[in-house]
Amino acid sequence: MMQQDPSKILVDSTKRLLRRNANRHLKKIVNKTHAADLSVVFRSLSLSDQHRLFNMIESNEQKGILFSELEEDIFVDLVDQLQLEGIVEILETMATDDVADLLGRLPEEKADAILKKMKKEGSVEVEDLLSYEDDTAGGIMIPDFIALREDTTAAEAIASLQKEHQDVEMPFYLYAVDEYGKLVGVSSLRQLVVVPPQTPLKEFMTPNVFSVQTDMDQEEVAKIVARYDILAVPVVDATNRLVGIVTVDDVIDIFRKEATEDILRMAGAGEEFVETKSILKSTRIRLPWLFASCIGGIIAFFIINHFEGSLNKFVYLAAFIPVIMGMGGNIGTQSSTIVVRGLATGRLSIRDIWTVVIKELAVGCILGLVYGLLIGSVAQFRYTRTMLALTVGLAVISSMAIAALVGSLIPMAFARVNIDPAVATGPFVTTAMDILSVLFYFTIATVLLGI
Amino acid sequence: MMQQDPSKILVDSTKRLLRRNANRHLKKIVNKTHAADLSVVFRSLSLSDQHRLFNMIESNEQKGILFSELEEDIFVDLVDQLQLEGIVEILETMATDDVADLLGRLPEEKADAILKKMKKEGSVEVEDLLSYEDDTAGGIMIPDFIALREDTTAAEAIASLQKEHQDVEMPFYLYAVDEYGKLVGVSSLRQLVVVPPQTPLKEFMTPNVFSVQTDMDQEEVAKIVARYDILAVPVVDATNRLVGIVTVDDVIDIFRKEATEDILRMAGAGEEFVETKSILKSTRIRLPWLFASCIGGIIAFFIINHFEGSLNKFVYLAAFIPVIMGMGGNIGTQSSTIVVRGLATGRLSIRDIWTVVIKELAVGCILGLVYGLLIGSVAQFRYTRTMLALTVGLAVISSMAIAALVGSLIPMAFARVNIDPAVATGPFVTTAMDILSVLFYFTIATVLLGI
Repeated sequence: MMQQDPSKILVDSTKRLLRRNANRHLKKIVNKTHAADLSVVFRSLSLSDQHRLFNMIESNEQKGILFSELEEDIFVDLVDQLQLEGIVEILETMATDDVADLLGRLPEEKADAILKKMKKEGSVEVEDLLSYEDDTAGGIMIPDFIALREDTTAAEAIASLQKEHQDVEMPFYLYAVDEYGKLVGVSSLRQLVVVPPQTPLKEFMTPNVFSVQTDMDQEEVAKIVARYDILAVPVVDATNRLVGIVTVDDVIDIFRKEATEDILRMAGAGEEFVETKSILKSTRIRLPWLFASCIGGIIAFFIINHFEGSLNKFVYLAAFIPVIMGMGGNIGTQSSTIVVRGLATGRLSIRDIWTVVIKELAVGCILGLVYGLLIGSVAQFRYTRTMLALTVGLAVISSMAIAALVGSLIPMAFARVNIDPAVATGPFVTTAMDILSVLFYFTIATVLLGI
Repeated sequence: MMQQDPSKILVDSTKRLLRRNANRHLKKIVNKTHAADLSVVFRSLSLSDQHRLFNMIESNEQKGILFSELEEDIFVDLVDQLQLEGIVEILETMATDDVADLLGRLPEEKADAILKKMKKEGSVEVEDLLSYEDDTAGGIMIPDFIALREDTTAAEAIASLQKEHQDVEMPFYLYAVDEYGKLVGVSSLRQLVVVPPQTPLKEFMTPNVFSVQTDMDQEEVAKIVARYDILAVPVVDATNRLVGIVTVDDVIDIFRKEATEDILRMAGAGEEFVETKSILKSTRIRLPWLFASCIGGIIAFFIINHFEGSLNKFVYLAAFIPVIMGMGGNIGTQSSTIVVRGLATGRLSIRDIWTVVIKELAVGCILGLVYGLLIGSVAQFRYTRTMLALTVGLAVISSMAIAALVGSLIPMAFARVNIDPAVATGPFVTTAMDILSVLFYFTIATVLLGI
């Protein structure tokens, strides 16, 4: 994970030029830089500077590409500064799926106002796309693809590429459809130039096409593309009519976004990136997740309170609280992380629930035994009271075994009822473990030490 | 993250057929099923059943594809069962980069023995690829690509596609090179069929090509492909000579693998998937990570021990240990996760170190204030001793502020000295926080309560 940063120079020199009002230079930069890099520059500018730079971009196409590259927050704020007419002109240069994506980020009234102003044809297509759920195949597909009747010859197909399909973004595959528009086969662009010109599509197409339905979850779609190493997967409606394709570049974005969301959720840090947000916004997002841990801590407080009598007699019981809580918490995090990531990558499935949970329990028992012996020995060495050492050792074993069990069971159970297992992990598992560790520890102590 | 599982049926019926010795059925299954799906079946079979199924595969090509799809462990075990000659025959049907990949997984003597038996030409190419570091552009590139001189016409290019380049796996782009084999431009296959046949490559190629050098880290390569939405990026040597390409399907694998590694490392659960490993193997991988937490707990134990006098006087101090540790641990995890993921996705860079750390410290102070007040109030309500409430409140504030600071600083500092920040997180940050929380708490108590 080495970090290089060629964009540092770009950001710094843009800022310097903005301070110096060097408009001619700035114009050159914004019109020559790739929109992906410009979006990084925009991230570190004030809204007014963003607006100023944006107006220096000459072509509406370039503005549209930048719209797509900007982060959601920045895009929404920037659009607020622009005239409705200007926005419409930019959107009309863009592919409909990107327009649908952008409009989905805006407040509803604003999106409606823009749609009304757009040319009829484009706006109908956009509205079609907006009708699919955001994170389904329908929501992420591109409606531009090449579909030809199965009796088209290779030569005719090439001719149609030259004439009709100039606007298709990424023509990797030619899809063959029957007279009802139903998907029957696929050919690569490469096969097209390799076969004799008069060969009809149906003779060289592959008749077994992987396809997905419009309502399939985007993560499932991404897994199919990754699994079969294909560049695009066709999307069909309930009647097997070809309605769009999902391309590999969107699949990369899905995987990266989902991985980030899972990681942040597991850490109880929301699900969106907060590091570019203001201190207050970032505080607000993180506050509620810590509340779970706070409530858990207060419950642990009342439990220990309940055992105040035992503590009064054996005050050194307190000294072992951190190590017992820590061991439980850490093994619980291991278990839940393995399960959450296993489910996300498809290497574990919810039907394995009992195999997984029992295995984790076994691992928890073994590791509990190892560390119970170790920490129990420390207790014996320090206090030479066998019953105390036994109490501490048993508390470590039970805390670690239960943590492995709870840590694997909770996300599995959540996944089974279709709740994102990543949400169930992190603060919740840790908090549950804190409470259980303390409860087991003091119960064992009370019984064994006869208090 | 809905889980569907079409492969369950396949796994179950294969197992049933194996029990019944229904060889004819089994043969049909192994020869008709996509290797990606077969690899899932292999995961749940005994080694002898795997061997039996493998021998039923008819073509060496199919066996080779399966080799690539199998998990590392399973592949190595399976190869141990096979004759050297058989392995060589299979590898000779495969692309050199895949062969290099597979050989890299085997013990060195075995790989050498196989290389010696392979036909000269192929084995030299494989050895070339093996000479690059595993996780660099050179290590993951494919040596099959289409490179043509810049004065080639579109018609000549198409003719060469039909004759010479039949073996190129994924011909998305045609690269234009000069007389020394140096990369000068790129054209898509699509442009090729769209321009008039006599146009020379240099007139319609894009002269600005993104390229990467052979020693670039694979994650950086992946980020470039993702950032610019390209299907393949050309790899050049130090003299800008084109030596290979990295394709988008490998990029997806890199992102998924890196995300998984980061997540598992952060949870202190190794970096490889353990859920398909045996209980003992899985225990062995997780054991050392818990040791950090164990040592941390024992240190916390000695700290509390040191304050035994204070505890004897105010035994209810013990009851607040869990909530103070929990709040510190959880906000520390938030901070380190945000930083680790930010660095991995390139949204944070190590040059931002102080901006990020100071911001996290500010967030930690605000959240510490909120929860310090809340938990302090609980203490006041329960014991009505203002100094105790103040102690608890201050301990929460300092613990949370320090946790946010340490949680963001440690991964940033590690990244700066080129150590994977994900390793630095998880158990280490949690353990450091456990120790610091307890230390601050008892120090504040001793001062404020005048013990």
